[in-house]
Amino acid sequence: MTMRRWLLPEAIEDVLPAEAGQVEAMRRRLLDLFRGHGYEYVIPPLLEYVESLLTGTGRDLDLRTFKLVDQLSGRTLGVRADITPQVARIDAHLLNRKGVTRLCYCGSVLHTLPAALSSSRQPLQIGAELYGHAGSEADVEIIRLLADALKLSGVVASRVDLGHVGIFRALADSAGIDADLEQELFGVLQAKDQPTLRELLNGARVAEPFRSALLALPECYGGSAALAAVAQRLPALPEIERALAELAALARSVTDLPVSFDLSDLRGYHYHSGAVFAAYGADHPGPIALGGRYDEVGLSFGRARPATGFSLDLRELVRLAPRAAAPGMILAPWAPEDAALQRTVADLRAAGEGVVAALPGHDGDWLDAGCDRRLVVRDGRWQIEFLAS
Amino acid sequence: MTMRRWLLPEAIEDVLPAEAGQVEAMRRRLLDLFRGHGYEYVIPPLLEYVESLLTGTGRDLDLRTFKLVDQLSGRTLGVRADITPQVARIDAHLLNRKGVTRLCYCGSVLHTLPAALSSSRQPLQIGAELYGHAGSEADVEIIRLLADALKLSGVVASRVDLGHVGIFRALADSAGIDADLEQELFGVLQAKDQPTLRELLNGARVAEPFRSALLALPECYGGSAALAAVAQRLPALPEIERALAELAALARSVTDLPVSFDLSDLRGYHYHSGAVFAAYGADHPGPIALGGRYDEVGLSFGRARPATGFSLDLRELVRLAPRAAAPGMILAPWAPEDAALQRTVADLRAAGEGVVAALPGHDGDWLDAGCDRRLVVRDGRWQIEFLAS
Repeated sequence: MTMRRWLLPEAIEDVLPAEAGQVEAMRRRLLDLFRGHGYEYVIPPLLEYVESLLTGTGRDLDLRTFKLVDQLSGRTLGVRADITPQVARIDAHLLNRKGVTRLCYCGSVLHTLPAALSSSRQPLQIGAELYGHAGSEADVEIIRLLADALKLSGVVASRVDLGHVGIFRALADSAGIDADLEQELFGVLQAKDQPTLRELLNGARVAEPFRSALLALPECYGGSAALAAVAQRLPALPEIERALAELAALARSVTDLPVSFDLSDLRGYHYHSGAVFAAYGADHPGPIALGGRYDEVGLSFGRARPATGFSLDLRELVRLAPRAAAPGMILAPWAPEDAALQRTVADLRAAGEGVVAALPGHDGDWLDAGCDRRLVVRDGRWQIEFLAS
Repeated sequence: MTMRRWLLPEAIEDVLPAEAGQVEAMRRRLLDLFRGHGYEYVIPPLLEYVESLLTGTGRDLDLRTFKLVDQLSGRTLGVRADITPQVARIDAHLLNRKGVTRLCYCGSVLHTLPAALSSSRQPLQIGAELYGHAGSEADVEIIRLLADALKLSGVVASRVDLGHVGIFRALADSAGIDADLEQELFGVLQAKDQPTLRELLNGARVAEPFRSALLALPECYGGSAALAAVAQRLPALPEIERALAELAALARSVTDLPVSFDLSDLRGYHYHSGAVFAAYGADHPGPIALGGRYDEVGLSFGRARPATGFSLDLRELVRLAPRAAAPGMILAPWAPEDAALQRTVADLRAAGEGVVAALPGHDGDWLDAGCDRRLVVRDGRWQIEFLAS
């Protein structure tokens, strides 16, 4: 048998000690940050009925979702490809609170195909979501929380693009574009693929001024000045005016991130409904974090609730973050009956050190096992010295 | 449409804030304990090729594993139903160290069917594994680490049963029992189902003294005295004598847990090879934790390595643990421009408190959102007072 049984599927990885330690440390820092701001931790399951997982989320997420048959019910299950809709379900149905609910989570999702060439099929999604408040204060809080999370992780966002799904939707609705074409246009816009965009609009005979406005969207990006200019290129629909005012206000409120605009950057799996944002880093091709409004998701679970939040791939974040030197471990000699040694070991462990018992017969292999220091007796006391390599 | 989209599949649950907070706290305590003892954290993936996941693990795990088709390779993938074999693969192949390697992990696994009537199909498996040391010092360290983990979690083990797969294996081998019958006997022994055991042994015309010895196994349990008596009921095969001596030595070394013996309690998915153990609690039908030797698993990945470890379901452990009162959150008035308030809020967050900004328009709903205190100005200073219900 020549099959190499230790090979993993493409775009699926083990996280080994050095990286796993950083991921765990970052996980704790971010969850503690969220908790500090009142975001309660929840753990939605890996599996749900597909109807629950994919309700109101669009075709993109459907294609990315692994499907399974439930032996208990005969129904089709999906392995979650995104946690945000699950958390919306928890808010809408399980917690069932009248006022504001803040929730956070951290867990693996699986994708049938990697989202981008270099992406993992098992991102470790971490995020925070704010339900029950329609005002832009919620969006501001969420974007600021993202800013705090990035600062805490040592990752510098070179740019945070604000967009608004309402602008595209208003144009598509006013032009009488059907759901299939809307979906196609949505994808093409995100890719900023103007030739295909022009082709699709011409093919469907989309009327003016909506054709020109949709064609202009990929060029509607830049700083505050660019946003002001955008208003001239788009029809004066009330939804569009409201959306542009919302974006301008949001930009004024978020002062701790380099905010710009990109009206064709409509991230998310089709469930976003209002202001959206994507944070980018200097050394990273894709976005570091995605977020925005998705007021309509709760509706599918029987309870419409304003919703906004963000999420990011924790492993990607760790890869972008400055790497702290991981402390090595301390080797303790094999002497289970030595009470003084065992007290010293217990004290070191209580102080946060990793202390390894030198199981007999492995001299010479302890550096390899991650030890950089050892306990030795000097002047009648147990003391730490560096382990010579 | 009458389908209730928020319903989850049977034996699949959301973990809501109160429980999720406890799970997260316990997760950190246990991983920190493992780290203190030199166990390095790894994160194996949720998905692998089935050949890798199920190599050397037996039919039981196969039946419990959800299978998927990989769109990238056309091959069959499995969602892990157990993390231990994955960690053995990491030790055997990826780390490839000569000496001792200590690894730990915490992650969800999925089961096609619940392991027991009340079990979840998504246990949150946490565990520690020690590779590269064949001596019983490794087993003692692992059982003591389990004792420390239980103590830390406040869960009292009423009994830790030691068993030894080598005894059953020696009897089956000497009697010339084939692999299928061996597997059947294995299941029947664990269920202590003596009538079926007798039927199977008679049907297969298993010869004496092996027939009587196998029939006696379900009665071989109790304290140290029971173990001494057991030797009289089993044939004097060298493997059996070695196994009994090993168990007696193990029991002498583990003084901080109530150790007893059960020679038919052969847990694990058929991959265990030597001494095994199961910890039971007073108020819990099944075992709280399972562990033992599985020296043969690494072999499937091209590198035989001594291995021992334990794992448990973290959610079950939290359910058995005494529940600490979760601290409520502090409500801060909506005043983003008030620098003194924002400093107070930042200080409270740095001290570990959850502080919630009272987004405008939600008066009266904050108790519901988990706040039990609020910040108010008294004598010109921001102070905390209890929130009246």
